[in-house]
Amino acid sequence: MSDILNRLAETLEGRKTADPASSYVARLYAKGLDAILKKIGEEATETIIAAKDGDSAHLVYEIADLWFHSMVLLAQQGLHPDAVLEELARREGLSGLVEKAGRQDGV
Amino acid sequence: MSDILNRLAETLEGRKTADPASSYVARLYAKGLDAILKKIGEEATETIIAAKDGDSAHLVYEIADLWFHSMVLLAQQGLHPDAVLEELARREGLSGLVEKAGRQDGV
Amino acid sequence: MSDILNRLAETLEGRKTADPASSYVARLYAKGLDAILKKIGEEATETIIAAKDGDSAHLVYEIADLWFHSMVLLAQQGLHPDAVLEELARREGLSGLVEKAGRQDGV
Amino acid sequence: MSDILNRLAETLEGRKTADPASSYVARLYAKGLDAILKKIGEEATETIIAAKDGDSAHLVYEIADLWFHSMVLLAQQGLHPDAVLEELARREGLSGLVEKAGRQDGV
Repeated sequence: MSDILNRLAETLEGRKTADPASSYVARLYAKGLDAILKKIGEEATETIIAAKDGDSAHLVYEIADLWFHSMVLLAQQGLHPDAVLEELARREGLSGLVEKAGRQDGV
Repeated sequence: MSDILNRLAETLEGRKTADPASSYVARLYAKGLDAILKKIGEEATETIIAAKDGDSAHLVYEIADLWFHSMVLLAQQGLHPDAVLEELARREGLSGLVEKAGRQDGV
Repeated sequence: MSDILNRLAETLEGRKTADPASSYVARLYAKGLDAILKKIGEEATETIIAAKDGDSAHLVYEIADLWFHSMVLLAQQGLHPDAVLEELARREGLSGLVEKAGRQDGV
Repeated sequence: MSDILNRLAETLEGRKTADPASSYVARLYAKGLDAILKKIGEEATETIIAAKDGDSAHLVYEIADLWFHSMVLLAQQGLHPDAVLEELARREGLSGLVEKAGRQDGV
């Protein structure tokens, strides 16, 4: 299942040379960074609304939208989602340590 | 690398019975849903700011924060990140189809 | 100049009985609360982007959009912007007091 | 009531020379633009949460927070809230015209 982020990253990379008329992501790239950032803001808002509604299926859908557009942003900036997973792994590693009060503690 | 989401989901599950004094995530659970949603809004904002600054390292860090708190939200709602990955896989599958103009097209 | 909030509140009130086909605000009311909240999220995001660009004219435009949709939200909830101004006046009054460190201090 | 925006704008201007140790707004100025933008994102999120809760008093409080921090942003950028009111007046003027379908119509 977890391979999906790699496959999606590849697809997003391929969309960089696609015709904007034929692909949603190619259109987003063509519009540029601000258009992608507006989608991040939108999907975060929709995630919050779905969570307040207590609608699990909708919440999963909106978080998928939020991650999807985060990955479009990473691709547009020449970055790979592995960098995000490595940062999460680093924090996960920290959580093995004895936790202390404060934001410095593990997760 | 991609196993990290599973390991993190397990850790977040374990934090449900942890002492809020000893863990950042346990404190978030104790504060409840709205506190977690405020973090989603905050991290989306910080992602946008980092992207506008063109600072790649900061951007990766903020997207990790955004995904991390999305996973705290999923855990608090009794959901697993696999549900999000399945939704992304479903869309990725769609992108194999011939794309057409419109939001109905693949990614 | 400051009368504009009152005049706008009246206009927004009048749009409650307007044909959604003829008015942007009547369409927003017809779509309901979530559609209005999505606009709040969108306009906050666009305000942040405009500020990062250091584009004053664009920033004023986006803050106007943010306030405008806040007023649509107030109207939809049966509230008047005077309630917001009263809350701001209350805080402004507090700022006359000797300020102390901490969020409890005046503005 | 509507004079409050002018009085608040004056107070915010005065805080530019205040000691950060003594004033919340002076501290925000000292932290810089990004800190103010994070507050915009936070208060928009809290407005959305309060609206979903259907809590009118809380909603008014959060919209006041959102407008307040918009005004801090304007002041930090050397702008006056009158510019925002003028933009709102311009739109209000448009709404007197016969409305047509589309975003080009009046409010």
